[in-house]
Amino acid sequence: MKIYIHTKFEVAEVAIIKEQLAAKYTLSIGEEISPENREEQFLEADICFGNVPLAWAKKTTKLQWLQLHSAGLDPYQQLGNHTFQITNLKGFFGTSVAETAVAGILAMFRGVAYLSQLQTESKWIGTPLRSSLHLLSNAKVLVLGAGAIGQKVKTFLSGFNCETTVLDSKTVVNLDNYLPTTDILVATLPETPETVGLLNKTRLGMLKSSALFVNVGRGSAVDEEALIEMLQQNKIYGAVLDVTAKEPIPENHVLWHMPNVLLTQHTSGGWAEENLDKIKFFIENLERFEKGETLVNIANLERGY
Amino acid sequence: MKIYIHTKFEVAEVAIIKEQLAAKYTLSIGEEISPENREEQFLEADICFGNVPLAWAKKTTKLQWLQLHSAGLDPYQQLGNHTFQITNLKGFFGTSVAETAVAGILAMFRGVAYLSQLQTESKWIGTPLRSSLHLLSNAKVLVLGAGAIGQKVKTFLSGFNCETTVLDSKTVVNLDNYLPTTDILVATLPETPETVGLLNKTRLGMLKSSALFVNVGRGSAVDEEALIEMLQQNKIYGAVLDVTAKEPIPENHVLWHMPNVLLTQHTSGGWAEENLDKIKFFIENLERFEKGETLVNIANLERGY
Repeated sequence: MKIYIHTKFEVAEVAIIKEQLAAKYTLSIGEEISPENREEQFLEADICFGNVPLAWAKKTTKLQWLQLHSAGLDPYQQLGNHTFQITNLKGFFGTSVAETAVAGILAMFRGVAYLSQLQTESKWIGTPLRSSLHLLSNAKVLVLGAGAIGQKVKTFLSGFNCETTVLDSKTVVNLDNYLPTTDILVATLPETPETVGLLNKTRLGMLKSSALFVNVGRGSAVDEEALIEMLQQNKIYGAVLDVTAKEPIPENHVLWHMPNVLLTQHTSGGWAEENLDKIKFFIENLERFEKGETLVNIANLERGY
Repeated sequence: MKIYIHTKFEVAEVAIIKEQLAAKYTLSIGEEISPENREEQFLEADICFGNVPLAWAKKTTKLQWLQLHSAGLDPYQQLGNHTFQITNLKGFFGTSVAETAVAGILAMFRGVAYLSQLQTESKWIGTPLRSSLHLLSNAKVLVLGAGAIGQKVKTFLSGFNCETTVLDSKTVVNLDNYLPTTDILVATLPETPETVGLLNKTRLGMLKSSALFVNVGRGSAVDEEALIEMLQQNKIYGAVLDVTAKEPIPENHVLWHMPNVLLTQHTSGGWAEENLDKIKFFIENLERFEKGETLVNIANLERGY
């Protein structure tokens, strides 16, 4: 049985893969092969770990299982008929992304984002800042998306005595009922036909002027122009954006200079042991594959997650 | 009965005090009197709200009750014999300070402090940052001080599945047993003879190189020179300092420029409704005073909190 590893791992991480799998499998590591020879290796593989180009995935006749290294399924929704199983990393990033969401909320409310910037100028303000700060405790929080991220946000906020409502893909249509009383709106939505443009100008306009918007899902869920206008006019308190319409954000983009915006540069899914944990996930799924058990995280290409 | 208000409040806040108390009491508002006439007003008062100079407090013969606007008792420990009651705001800042502590932890672990700084330069790094991030979830946390702040830190961390140990003034002597396995050390200690210099060079040296130190108590609890040296040599992961030996931190101080330090400028006790909530606290205590009930937060000058 041949396994092709397409994900780019560090040398030490590849060493771990080899240590655990080389005795039992024929391993082909993309990073160790010149780029023009990788497709051939993939087409000979029974199992692949990593997000190979769509064209390769359309071509393979031998592949039995493709383990993606992402939660997102893009571009494989365009795959059409295929005979191999596809699994993704749904839920894998829940803790990490939700931690950045809460980090962002607290950084805005407790002034930490601004204090970090003051630090670069060796500038002490101190006491006068205090009246500009806010408390997360007892806030009314609306979380859009009931996947791993949304659930974790709710769990993390439990200690802060927040009143947290999580809307899933079925109940998200009731969104408008919650917006006017929401203190913190956290979008954790995947990109699907239903979520694109969900937070349009009208809906954003229903938020309180003291509301904080957090987006750790996909930039496409929000009308970014309308959001920027509202932030500029202080019609909402602020925004924490891990995702934006354009990534990287262009150097001359207005978002960089908005004092009520915190940009976390799509880093929320990361942590030091991210790759090691991905490898661990793959190997555990591989053991299931060997035993003929149902794989964890079989992707639903139609639904998009 | 005459009440002298020494705390500096905004006009709108003073209006609330007057609205609630002017009908029943003779009110004297320090901010509305020229500074040279304030002492006289205080000396005629039965009740005072606010931290008046120690000399005044030593002089009064009429005062029945002094409500401080701080949790700290300095300099009233030098008061000597006095016939009036003293209450402080012990516990009042617990939620706020603990929120800044957690905000600081998450800002360091999730890269938010650094990302805020990148934002001032319109600089996108994105994905390469991910492997430098850490998770708060499942961390081993040691909290020094079991007052309102320490208890709130523990509560806030409960959703993150942290293993949190809180040491109070009696158990803090066992500190050394915990330091070598601690991921996050949070000092919430008041300044007392026992806490000054508690975190000396030897104790700091027992921390792991991956440990994060957070100080939201008093700067005097730690040997700051030793801490800075450890941070410069990356012998610990980082520090979040709301309190420091010198405040304001001098413009040329090395702390400003340390990439593994987040300075929150002693703002942790603040929030937008801080003054309104202080007024509310005072008025509720005043109702107890009227009824002859025991006041909340009677200060223990000997203990220091």
